[in-house]
Amino acid sequence: MKWLLNPSSCPGFQKFEIKDHVERGEHVHHTEYFFVQIPERYALVNITDYVEDSLSRAKIADGFCFVSAMHITAGIYVNDAENGLLSDISKWIDNLAPFGEDYRHHATGEDNADAHLKSFLTNHCIQVPITKGKLDLGTWQQIFYGEYDGKRTKRILIKFTGLKIL
Amino acid sequence: MKWLLNPSSCPGFQKFEIKDHVERGEHVHHTEYFFVQIPERYALVNITDYVEDSLSRAKIADGFCFVSAMHITAGIYVNDAENGLLSDISKWIDNLAPFGEDYRHHATGEDNADAHLKSFLTNHCIQVPITKGKLDLGTWQQIFYGEYDGKRTKRILIKFTGLKIL
Amino acid sequence: MKWLLNPSSCPGFQKFEIKDHVERGEHVHHTEYFFVQIPERYALVNITDYVEDSLSRAKIADGFCFVSAMHITAGIYVNDAENGLLSDISKWIDNLAPFGEDYRHHATGEDNADAHLKSFLTNHCIQVPITKGKLDLGTWQQIFYGEYDGKRTKRILIKFTGLKIL
Repeated sequence: MKWLLNPSSCPGFQKFEIKDHVERGEHVHHTEYFFVQIPERYALVNITDYVEDSLSRAKIADGFCFVSAMHITAGIYVNDAENGLLSDISKWIDNLAPFGEDYRHHATGEDNADAHLKSFLTNHCIQVPITKGKLDLGTWQQIFYGEYDGKRTKRILIKFTGLKIL
Repeated sequence: MKWLLNPSSCPGFQKFEIKDHVERGEHVHHTEYFFVQIPERYALVNITDYVEDSLSRAKIADGFCFVSAMHITAGIYVNDAENGLLSDISKWIDNLAPFGEDYRHHATGEDNADAHLKSFLTNHCIQVPITKGKLDLGTWQQIFYGEYDGKRTKRILIKFTGLKIL
Repeated sequence: MKWLLNPSSCPGFQKFEIKDHVERGEHVHHTEYFFVQIPERYALVNITDYVEDSLSRAKIADGFCFVSAMHITAGIYVNDAENGLLSDISKWIDNLAPFGEDYRHHATGEDNADAHLKSFLTNHCIQVPITKGKLDLGTWQQIFYGEYDGKRTKRILIKFTGLKIL
């Protein structure tokens, strides 16, 4: 299958809605929804910068950022952004959860059972630690959105919980 | 293999024990164990309603619900509840982590090495966000318990952490 | 491939750095880095004892321990420590994400694309609940570090968040 890999920009990710922001004492809970529409059916998109933008709005000193696809045909994972590797990852996902098999889900009129299975391989959500006000990631760790049934608007939830910056 | 898919009820899930409930200031930590016995060896059970029942006892306004199998031959995942898809998921799990291979674990007298491998595919735990007092799930996201070695009593841990409803 | 399975000791895991320790009111956030160097390329190491050592330093009564590889060629998972099963798990990982294929990532000079794919199968991080001051694990649940590209120093992050022991 054709995959959109590492697009230099993906406009939908700048479109966010602050769902809730609660401060109690020194604790902050901050929740945003992103609304994204990927122009291809399959994509791996590096969303680390968008998550960092959210962190700057959440103003967390220490805690966690939870990032989750709100759809069951998409995934969130942490791995390297090297282009050859993205190609390997997409091919590996296609091999283990192939499109176009005789899936029973397709009796409903859908053709995306492979996308549901792909979401098992990458998971649909991830937790990223925050220490001293920054995402506490290793040198090569980047946060990716995996789209397995695109060309429609999808939501991504980002929830920060932790101690506020004093 | 024969799988029990989407049973309309699964009585064990109503049997819970409140393991601990701690309130400090505006924060609540609430932990429950569920005791379930699935009548088949393999099953995918939608437990979203049971998690919501727990949430009504935990009384969290914003935070997370962590749901975990306490066994290494079971899983917790979030995906769609459509029956054809459940059949596809069970078949996919069986294909990638098949029963009856010549596993070295079976030298111990066990016959469930496949169940351990199946738990890697679906994970054994999941985190569900809570916003404005409700599970913050997408339209089609449901929480499932995957049983890969049933016919015995197993525990599921549910821990809520967050801000209490004022 | 040859795997180092369940070594009785793995000295690097005793080498830790407290990255940050924040107490606010009754809440503790405690973050450590471990620096490990596995003598083989592939390994599955039971790190439950090392996580418990960290917990004794964090002094959390109720909350979570988040354990994460900071590299994208390693994993953290929870499963059984039985030696035959570890052999089954390593073989299963090798089969689904094999070494030595014609990966495009290798055009960079690397030879570890399989390690990146292996990290999808086991995930790179895990969350472990803490109740009444102890890791709230099932009878057979143990925490493992999966090394898929060893013989170099790697970091593991452990972050505790929760209510302090009063």
